[in-house]
Amino acid sequence: MPRLIPLSERGGPLFRQVYLGLREAILSGVLQSGEKLPSTRDLAEQLGISRTVVLLAYDQLLAEGFVEGRSGSGTFVASGVGTSRPAPTQVPVELGLSSFGTRAAASWSKVDLPARRRPSLPYDFSYGRSDLESFPFEMWRRILLRCARKAPISELDYGPAAGNLGLRQAISSHLRRSRAVVCDASQVIVVNGSQQALDLIVRVLVETDDRIVLEDPSYQGTRELLRASGARLLPIAVDGDGLDPARLPASARAAFLTPSHQFPTGAILPLARRLRVLEWAKRSNAVIIEDDYDGEFRYEGQSVESLQGLDRQGRVIYVGTFSRTVFSALRIGYLIAPKTLVPAFTAAKWLCDRHTPTLEQQALAEFICGGMYERYLRRVRRRNALRRQVLLDSIHTRLGDRVHVTGDGAGAHVVLWLRPRLSEQAVVKKAAALGVGVWGISPYYLKPAPRNGIMLGYSRMTEAEIREGIRRLSEVL
Amino acid sequence: MPRLIPLSERGGPLFRQVYLGLREAILSGVLQSGEKLPSTRDLAEQLGISRTVVLLAYDQLLAEGFVEGRSGSGTFVASGVGTSRPAPTQVPVELGLSSFGTRAAASWSKVDLPARRRPSLPYDFSYGRSDLESFPFEMWRRILLRCARKAPISELDYGPAAGNLGLRQAISSHLRRSRAVVCDASQVIVVNGSQQALDLIVRVLVETDDRIVLEDPSYQGTRELLRASGARLLPIAVDGDGLDPARLPASARAAFLTPSHQFPTGAILPLARRLRVLEWAKRSNAVIIEDDYDGEFRYEGQSVESLQGLDRQGRVIYVGTFSRTVFSALRIGYLIAPKTLVPAFTAAKWLCDRHTPTLEQQALAEFICGGMYERYLRRVRRRNALRRQVLLDSIHTRLGDRVHVTGDGAGAHVVLWLRPRLSEQAVVKKAAALGVGVWGISPYYLKPAPRNGIMLGYSRMTEAEIREGIRRLSEVL
Repeated sequence: MPRLIPLSERGGPLFRQVYLGLREAILSGVLQSGEKLPSTRDLAEQLGISRTVVLLAYDQLLAEGFVEGRSGSGTFVASGVGTSRPAPTQVPVELGLSSFGTRAAASWSKVDLPARRRPSLPYDFSYGRSDLESFPFEMWRRILLRCARKAPISELDYGPAAGNLGLRQAISSHLRRSRAVVCDASQVIVVNGSQQALDLIVRVLVETDDRIVLEDPSYQGTRELLRASGARLLPIAVDGDGLDPARLPASARAAFLTPSHQFPTGAILPLARRLRVLEWAKRSNAVIIEDDYDGEFRYEGQSVESLQGLDRQGRVIYVGTFSRTVFSALRIGYLIAPKTLVPAFTAAKWLCDRHTPTLEQQALAEFICGGMYERYLRRVRRRNALRRQVLLDSIHTRLGDRVHVTGDGAGAHVVLWLRPRLSEQAVVKKAAALGVGVWGISPYYLKPAPRNGIMLGYSRMTEAEIREGIRRLSEVL
Repeated sequence: MPRLIPLSERGGPLFRQVYLGLREAILSGVLQSGEKLPSTRDLAEQLGISRTVVLLAYDQLLAEGFVEGRSGSGTFVASGVGTSRPAPTQVPVELGLSSFGTRAAASWSKVDLPARRRPSLPYDFSYGRSDLESFPFEMWRRILLRCARKAPISELDYGPAAGNLGLRQAISSHLRRSRAVVCDASQVIVVNGSQQALDLIVRVLVETDDRIVLEDPSYQGTRELLRASGARLLPIAVDGDGLDPARLPASARAAFLTPSHQFPTGAILPLARRLRVLEWAKRSNAVIIEDDYDGEFRYEGQSVESLQGLDRQGRVIYVGTFSRTVFSALRIGYLIAPKTLVPAFTAAKWLCDRHTPTLEQQALAEFICGGMYERYLRRVRRRNALRRQVLLDSIHTRLGDRVHVTGDGAGAHVVLWLRPRLSEQAVVKKAAALGVGVWGISPYYLKPAPRNGIMLGYSRMTEAEIREGIRRLSEVL
C-alpha cells in the first residue's frame, strides 16, 4: 500500500504538480533512496487523475535523475538522492546574516539611506526634483520611438562600456560651452546617474583607510559609499562660502566637493577658494571630485564655472547628471575623467554592469544634438529664476528676520536656518500637518549639526503654491 | 600699450571667446594680480570687435571674481587670482596613474576584459548572443510606447531600488514555473544584467582574502570582479559533468557555479553532484551563487532545474538575465536572494546606481505578464533545438572523430575540443580567413588550459549558415 504523495501547491500544469510533489517527497526524505515508487496506475487512482499525467511526471523525474527505472520491476528513488535528510520543510530555512560573511553583509544592511519620500503634500518643497511639468514629453517620446525604429539590429547587442559615442560627444561639447569644462569625448564615461559615477570613483581611487575629505554637511549617497569602502572620512565644516581651504588637512587621497551649490547648504565656492583648493590638491597630490549636481542653475552675477575648468593639473574628476535637467527615472549621468584614468573607469564600468542601456543613450544624444536640451534648459532656468524670486520675496515678507536663508545663488533649493530653540522635527511635523512638505537638514551632517535648518526645493512648484506654502510655514515658525 | 589678448579657440559666442581668452591669460599668469586690463575701448579696437561684446566679457569676469573694478581707474586682475603661476599651458598636464592611488587605479586599468568583438564574419559562431531575428520588435516597440505614454508623471522620479514591483512579481512567477526556483517577489532584486548581480554579490558577501570557489574555466566577468575584490580564488577544474564536489576545499566563503550549462564548457551538473554541493555548502557554511545564464535552453531528457530549487538551507543566490532571452542592450537581469540578504542587496543596489531605468522595467513586465515572453521563449527554444541538431549532424559528418564535442545538452553554444597538436589561435585565424568566426576557450582558464578547444555559438545562425560554416571549418581542422 503506497504512502500518500501530496500534490505540490506550487501550481502549474497537473503533471508538474505531481512531479514537484514526488520531487519534494524524495528531497525531504519521505521517500528514501532505493525505495519503490507507487506504480503509475496506483498513483493515478490514488490522486484521481489520468495515468498519462503520472507517466509524464515520472518521465521528468527519470530525466533529472531523481528516480531510476528497473526494467519490469518498476521505478525506484535513485541512490544518493533521497539520503540527504534535510529539514523536512517546504520553505527553506532563513539563515541569520552571520551566515553570510562576518562583516560585509551585516554592514551593508545597516547602510543609512535617505528616508523614503512621504506621500506628497499639496505644498511640496521637495528638493532634487526635475521640472517635469515643463519637460517636452511628446517630443521625447517621438525621439525614443524614432531611435527604437531606426536602431540597426547590431545595436541591440552589448554596446561600448564607456557609452554611445554620439552621446559622449554631445555631453563634452555641452559641458565645454555651458560649464567651461576642459574635455573631449574620450574623457566622458556615461553612467547610470551621478550615483554610479561616485561609486566608480570610490572603487577605482579609494582603498581601505585612505584619508578622504568630505564637506560637512554632505550628500548621503557619497558618504555611505565612502563608509562602505572602509575609507577614513575627514569631514570639513562648510561656512557661507562653502569649504574653507584653510581647514584642509595636510594630506588626503581625495576630496569630494560640490563647489557650484554646496549640498545641502547651497553655498557657492568663490574663485579665490577654488584656486586655493587646487593648490592644496597639487601640494598633497590629492584628487578632487567635483559633483556638479546643480551647476546648470545659476542666478544674478553668481555664475561661477566648473572647478575642473580651472584645473591645470588634471586632478579634477567632474561628475554630472541628467536626473535634475531631464528626469530621474532616465538614470543617465556622466563623469569626466583625466585621460590617464579613462581605461580604469571604462574597466570598472564594464565590471559593474557592462554599459548603460542603449536606447536611452541614443534618445538623449538626439535630444541634445537637436538643440532641444539647451532650449529646455533655458526654459527651466527662467522658470526656476521666477520661482526663486517669489520664494525669496514671500520668505522676506512672511518670515522676515525669523530665519536666515542660504543657497539662493544657484541650484533649485534654499535652506532656512531656524532659531536655536526651534526643533527641525517639530517644524517638519507641524508643516506637514498644514499640508506643507519640508525637510530637516541635520541628517546630512557627519558631526553633530551646529544649527537647525529646513530645506525648501522649488523646482516643481507654481508661484501660487510657493506663496501659500510659505504663508502656512510662517504659522509654524 | 596693452599686451595682446588672444581670443579663445574654444568657440561659442564672441563675448565668450573674449571672456575665455582673458580668463586663460589670468589663470596662466600672463596677466598678474593687480595688473590693469586694457580699457574696453582699446581691447575692442585691438580685436576689431564691438565694445559691447568686450563689456559683456568684462562683466562676466567681474561676476566670477577674476577681475575687480576700481571706480574711475579701470579694471584690474583680482588679488589672489593670477598668482598661482601654473604651467603656462592650455591643456592640463596628464598625471601618471601613480598620482591616483597606489594600488586601486593601476590594478583597475589592468582588468582583463573579453576581447572586443571582431567585425562579424559571414559564418559567425558568436556565443552569448540573443536570437534577434525572431524577437518581436514591433510588439516590443508598441509596448515601450504604451508604457511611455501611460506612465504617470510620478514614475519619472526615482523608483524603488529593488525594482518595479510588477516586474519583480513577473520574474518570480516565471522562475517558479520555468526553473523551479523557490521564491516570491520580495526576494527579487532587479539589476542591469547579470554582471551587476554578480557585482552586488561580490560587494555584499566577499571581503579581502575570503576564500572563493570558482569553476575552472569560468566566466571572465566573475573572475575579474573577484580579483578586484582582493578575494583568494580557488579554481576547481571541471570535468564532463561540471564541478566535482569531491574536489571542493574543506572551507570557503562562497562558490560561484554555472550548473545548468557550465560556462564555457557547457557541462550539466548532474543531480547527485548538485545535492553533494549543497551538503558541502551546509558543512562549510558557504554561500552558493548559481549563475543560470542559459537555463532557459535545454534539450532532450536533459532538463535539470535550478540548484536553488533543491536548496533547503537558503544558501543559494540565483542570478539570471534577459540579455540572451530578450536582447543585451536592454540591460536587465535579476538576482534572487535569501530573505535575510534582501535589505543588504537593496542598499547595495541603491548605492551603485539607485535603480534600474523605469521605462524598460515597465515594458518588460508587460511583455512577460502578457504571455509574449513565454511565447517568444518557446519559439527560440524550438529554433535553437533545430540549429543544435543541424550543428551536431554537420560536425558528425564533416569532422567525425577529429573533434570531441561538449555542451550540447543545454544553452546555445558547444565546445569543439581539438587534437593536442592543433593550436587554438591558428584554428581561429585560419577559420576567420575562410569567413568563419569562432573563439578559443583558453582565455577562460585560470590555470593553464589542459586542452585546446573552440567555442561555437549557434543562437543567431540559419541552418544553411551552420552547415556551410562547419564545412569550411572542416577544411581548417
